[in-house]
Amino acid sequence: MAHVSVIGTGNMGQAIAGLATKGGNTVEVFGSSDADKHVTGDIVVLAVPYPAVSQVLAQRAEQLAGKIVIDITNPLNFETFDALVVPADSSATAGIAAALPSSRVLKAFNTNFAGTLVAGTVDGQPTTVLVAGDDTDAKALVTGLVSAAGLRAVDAGGLTRARELEAIGFLQITLAAAEKVSWTGGFAVAR
Amino acid sequence: MAHVSVIGTGNMGQAIAGLATKGGNTVEVFGSSDADKHVTGDIVVLAVPYPAVSQVLAQRAEQLAGKIVIDITNPLNFETFDALVVPADSSATAGIAAALPSSRVLKAFNTNFAGTLVAGTVDGQPTTVLVAGDDTDAKALVTGLVSAAGLRAVDAGGLTRARELEAIGFLQITLAAAEKVSWTGGFAVAR
Repeated sequence: MAHVSVIGTGNMGQAIAGLATKGGNTVEVFGSSDADKHVTGDIVVLAVPYPAVSQVLAQRAEQLAGKIVIDITNPLNFETFDALVVPADSSATAGIAAALPSSRVLKAFNTNFAGTLVAGTVDGQPTTVLVAGDDTDAKALVTGLVSAAGLRAVDAGGLTRARELEAIGFLQITLAAAEKVSWTGGFAVAR
Repeated sequence: MAHVSVIGTGNMGQAIAGLATKGGNTVEVFGSSDADKHVTGDIVVLAVPYPAVSQVLAQRAEQLAGKIVIDITNPLNFETFDALVVPADSSATAGIAAALPSSRVLKAFNTNFAGTLVAGTVDGQPTTVLVAGDDTDAKALVTGLVSAAGLRAVDAGGLTRARELEAIGFLQITLAAAEKVSWTGGFAVAR
């Protein structure tokens, strides 16, 4: 059991808050009008679109010290749908980790469409959440949170693997936007 | 129906030759002792490990002019399993396409483990082959070849998407090497 703060009230924020609640954790959710409210969770989920992350960090970097911070973003260029806006040899998560040196930053949930988190399944199999990060204890906490909600979690490696997770998220969004997969489908992970 | 040349006799070469045969195409397979034998296929599959591609290109670049060439490689650093050996803002496929300006180069099959091509299924669903490239007619031919063998094929976009396909192939291999997925599992594509 953990206390989870979800920053963002979109479909991903709601889906992750729902998972955390289902797994028996306490959850608080922050909307855009809650800028003055301090986060109290041990685990903080940055569930805002990538362009809004810098503003959240500007407001809350000090509050996030000592906490586990989960970056779920897919830093697409949403005008072209043809590139990421982060450097090719880096990731959104690497940038966030650099801005939060006193936090334990993980990448997770960016390869899952919200609908698959709510349903708990993709193609009849449990939805799998890929988690990358350098802090083993933090990853264990987050994979436990996912498992407690009845989904699967897989340790995808160190924080440098965020780059590959962002590539998967990117491709998955372009496939859904082109109607080649549905927003309730996409990449599943078969054991 | 097409005439398919598979260069490489490893498990991927065998699996792809088997698919092409199953779909009613004629197939020829080239081993390392066949350097002097000319490729005669309309579709040529480079089914050798990435480090061996440059040698194949040195031997056969002229023979490949006018043909559809499928790059299936995952250009991992197999010593560290922690990086690709191609530039971060490019792909193995982009390099091959640059070396073969008179060929129509596609990326395909690199996100499929050989076992899933042979079985035709992942987690009970048809195996999905992701195909990227800039030549629409070439992609249609290759997706048709895959479909004729009873598998699914999805157009993953232009040749620049090879970068994301290589990221997926990379992550999938690291997950299998770490025994987090099996070599008969990995990423499935749910509609």
